Amino acid sequence: MLDLKRLQRNLGYEFRDETLLVQSLTHRSAGARNNERLEFLGDAILGFEIAENLCREHPNASEGELSRARAQLVKRETLAGVARRLKLGDYLILGTGELRSGGQTRDSILSDAVEAIIAAVFMDADMESARALVRRILREEIAEISPEAQPKDSKTRLQEYLQAQGKSLPVYQVISVEGSAHEQQFVVECRASNLGITEQGEGASRRKAEQQAAYKVLAKIGVSDS
Amino acid sequence: MLDLKRLQRNLGYEFRDETLLVQSLTHRSAGARNNERLEFLGDAILGFEIAENLCREHPNASEGELSRARAQLVKRETLAGVARRLKLGDYLILGTGELRSGGQTRDSILSDAVEAIIAAVFMDADMESARALVRRILREEIAEISPEAQPKDSKTRLQEYLQAQGKSLPVYQVISVEGSAHEQQFVVECRASNLGITEQGEGASRRKAEQQAAYKVLAKIGVSDS
Repeated sequence: MLDLKRLQRNLGYEFRDETLLVQSLTHRSAGARNNERLEFLGDAILGFEIAENLCREHPNASEGELSRARAQLVKRETLAGVARRLKLGDYLILGTGELRSGGQTRDSILSDAVEAIIAAVFMDADMESARALVRRILREEIAEISPEAQPKDSKTRLQEYLQAQGKSLPVYQVISVEGSAHEQQFVVECRASNLGITEQGEGASRRKAEQQAAYKVLAKIGVSDS
Repeated sequence: MLDLKRLQRNLGYEFRDETLLVQSLTHRSAGARNNERLEFLGDAILGFEIAENLCREHPNASEGELSRARAQLVKRETLAGVARRLKLGDYLILGTGELRSGGQTRDSILSDAVEAIIAAVFMDADMESARALVRRILREEIAEISPEAQPKDSKTRLQEYLQAQGKSLPVYQVISVEGSAHEQQFVVECRASNLGITEQGEGASRRKAEQQAAYKVLAKIGVSDS
């Protein structure tokens, strides 16, 4: 076990009950007393704190703008970046299989641990301490976000474009999924049948592949980035 | 304007600033000072309170069971039911178009108003008052939920079945969308190509149509309700 004091300094929070911190760092591959339930709760605390923060700081943003900004702040990639700043990978407790396959560097495991730590602070202390932790570890990201300028993702833009034109919605279809469990590559087709345009996208997740396919359809239509 | 005192008695909360309550009842069709931003915030407060409540009351439920239970409690249909108990439809402030088309009886508008009221209480007082409101207005639903016994939805069950069999994922495709904006009827096809089974479902939303299609595929395979 590594020096949990250093991690607590990085978090700016000292646990009364360090077993909560240990549990928040324990992946389900390492045993029954793992961080899955904490992650469920931490996700909700994070979602609330970010929503409240955005509402307060951006009184003129629309609900859609706030939603997109929140999605940006709480998404897996953002939280994995926070985890890397905190060097969480050094502290994660993983089963041997996960350890061997590099689980401590994977976005999903890092991001889940961040959420679990937020809940661990809530359990160890109270809501205000957990909210303060969220503001502290996401300070840079929160400071940089500007809800009014969040670009819409390609799928949303394509859908809105087609709806505005009175056309039917695009159809996404998974063409292939290749690779082992943690390195899957998806190929997805996006068909805008009214326009007679079909494009394929690929990516490490179905969502990413769909976005790329939608992006290509938009490019073909000639809809510029908003 | 109706008697807001009666509504506040039903909510078990008296506003210091009644304009917040009025704003939470105002649909976007009725003007710029509407409930959209409040709904965004209220959704997050609701999500947190339900998550925390479920974690506390069900210490042995898995993360998956907690997630399904929360989804059940915060979904549109559940919140619309709460709104009807509170007779919220009588108090909603809608634009004339929405009023004429019966917006005050629509699940989405009712459900959004419930979330907005939760945020209005938070703004009027504090987090604890908002959380207490959630527990009060959802008391019956919270008491009845048993996370360990949430049936999985048909799409989830079909996906898990196919994955367990090592088959490729089912493909959903919208076949048609008919009707005007608020009364659309979706027909969706679910194709489990490895099994050579294709079924169609229909419903008032794409999600419902997909669920029905998945349900029919499950029935054809002979997978019983879990």
